[in-house]
Amino acid sequence: MTHRFRVSVSRKPGLSDPEGTTTLKALQDLGFTDVSHVAFGRTIDVDLEAASGDDARLALEAMCQKLLANPVIESYTIEERP
Amino acid sequence: MTHRFRVSVSRKPGLSDPEGTTTLKALQDLGFTDVSHVAFGRTIDVDLEAASGDDARLALEAMCQKLLANPVIESYTIEERP
Repeated sequence: MTHRFRVSVSRKPGLSDPEGTTTLKALQDLGFTDVSHVAFGRTIDVDLEAASGDDARLALEAMCQKLLANPVIESYTIEERP
Repeated sequence: MTHRFRVSVSRKPGLSDPEGTTTLKALQDLGFTDVSHVAFGRTIDVDLEAASGDDARLALEAMCQKLLANPVIESYTIEERP
C-alpha cells in the first residue's frame, strides 16, 4: 500500500536564517511594516510502499537521518498526507 | 495582536522538480527502493501585527503575490499557526 508523507524541516531555534532575515527586510521595504518575523523551512513530500503505516514511518525516519535533514542543525516533523 | 501564519509553497503540478528527482534517485541508491515519488516545497513562517485575522490574511495574500511566491509556476496555501 502506498503511504504519503510530508516531512517539514526547519532550522533549530537560535541558528541564523539568512533567507528569513533578508525576506523580512524586503517585506518591510515593500511597505509591510507590521511584519515582525520571517523564517524559512522546506517540505519534502514522499510517497512510499510499505506494509503498514508504522513501517513507512520507520523508513521515513531513517531517510531523514541519512539524507533529508541535517539533524545537527535542523529539526523535522513527519506527518501523513491524505 | 500578533498573528502567526505559515505559507506553504509548492510547484504547480506538471512542472519539473529537479531537487525531487535527484533526491528520489539518492534515496533509492541508499536502499530505500520502496520510495516512488519525492517533491520539494518551502514553508515561510510569518508573524505580523494586525487588527484581525482577516486583515492579517489579506496582507499575507498580498505578500505572497508580490514576493513570497511566484504565482506563475507556484501555488501556495496560507494557514494560521498556533
